Amino acid sequence: MTHPSVFCAGEEGQWRIVDIKQVCGLSLPPADFLKITDIDAREEGKGWLLRGTAGHARYTTRSEADQLALRQDPLGRASARCAALIPIRKSEAWWSLVQDERRSIIEETSQHFRIGMDYLPAVARKLYHSRDLGEPFDFLTWFEFAEESADEFETLLTRLRATEEWRYVEREVDVRLRRADQL
Amino acid sequence: MTHPSVFCAGEEGQWRIVDIKQVCGLSLPPADFLKITDIDAREEGKGWLLRGTAGHARYTTRSEADQLALRQDPLGRASARCAALIPIRKSEAWWSLVQDERRSIIEETSQHFRIGMDYLPAVARKLYHSRDLGEPFDFLTWFEFAEESADEFETLLTRLRATEEWRYVEREVDVRLRRADQL
Repeated sequence: MTHPSVFCAGEEGQWRIVDIKQVCGLSLPPADFLKITDIDAREEGKGWLLRGTAGHARYTTRSEADQLALRQDPLGRASARCAALIPIRKSEAWWSLVQDERRSIIEETSQHFRIGMDYLPAVARKLYHSRDLGEPFDFLTWFEFAEESADEFETLLTRLRATEEWRYVEREVDVRLRRADQL
Repeated sequence: MTHPSVFCAGEEGQWRIVDIKQVCGLSLPPADFLKITDIDAREEGKGWLLRGTAGHARYTTRSEADQLALRQDPLGRASARCAALIPIRKSEAWWSLVQDERRSIIEETSQHFRIGMDYLPAVARKLYHSRDLGEPFDFLTWFEFAEESADEFETLLTRLRATEEWRYVEREVDVRLRRADQL
């Protein structure tokens, strides 16, 4: 069975929050640490909590899935001491499109998959789906990379945010983190 | 924002449960009534509770969505005094397929959309997605129809269960209901 993962910002966690940038729409409150867990227990009044389910691929084709499997590294590499959590909500205009229209904007127009491939294996990535859960965001994307890949990661984000797909993004927050054990 | 709907079986509700058939896999415990609500409050120890989110179309093309909009009637018609709640879980083999492979089995091979169209507007239908919520089923489908369309509804189910898509179904329960106010 598939279960939601919980991103719990508060006073403890494996990751230290170093910055929370408001990209568009409402931001998230400041917090010191982020804990990633399967348990939906908020530390009372001490931070925020976002949930998402990793689950199955929604837009990827077989050929793309096979290319990804060859190129991507897993999360949790010892060298990847930097992370970003980017929660995104897309507009009602996006969700009223049907599957083939959304796929066309994601890939044929915006080349989302191709852009991501350009930064593999340096930037490892995992996508969590939140919309069905009634969460304030539709997706949470988690990225991990080494210090020396930080510039590459910025370029990846700049390219994605310039796509037609991003015109449907109405809320985006960019949370930057470091592994807590290095502090 | 999209929120899960809650199907709560217990001692009260708008619908009276008249039968619970085990189609494949584990069944659901007996209960007398079903309440459909937005509130996730289980009546302690008195029945079962299933959640799902109606949300956006996952496989429908624009042409299919337009045909559906022309043909389908809304839920809640006064004449539709019969209902069925059919929770389904598909196998891991299904979920490891990519989007275009799943779409191909649903429509090009199994004609799921075309079969459903044959029974519109008599059988009104709403699909709820449960998988991302960590629920025991992946989908809940809710059907409403008049007494005189009951045979048509059985034919619809027989045709769907004979498709290639249904070979991926590993758990299915068929809950039959009547509007509680007619008893």
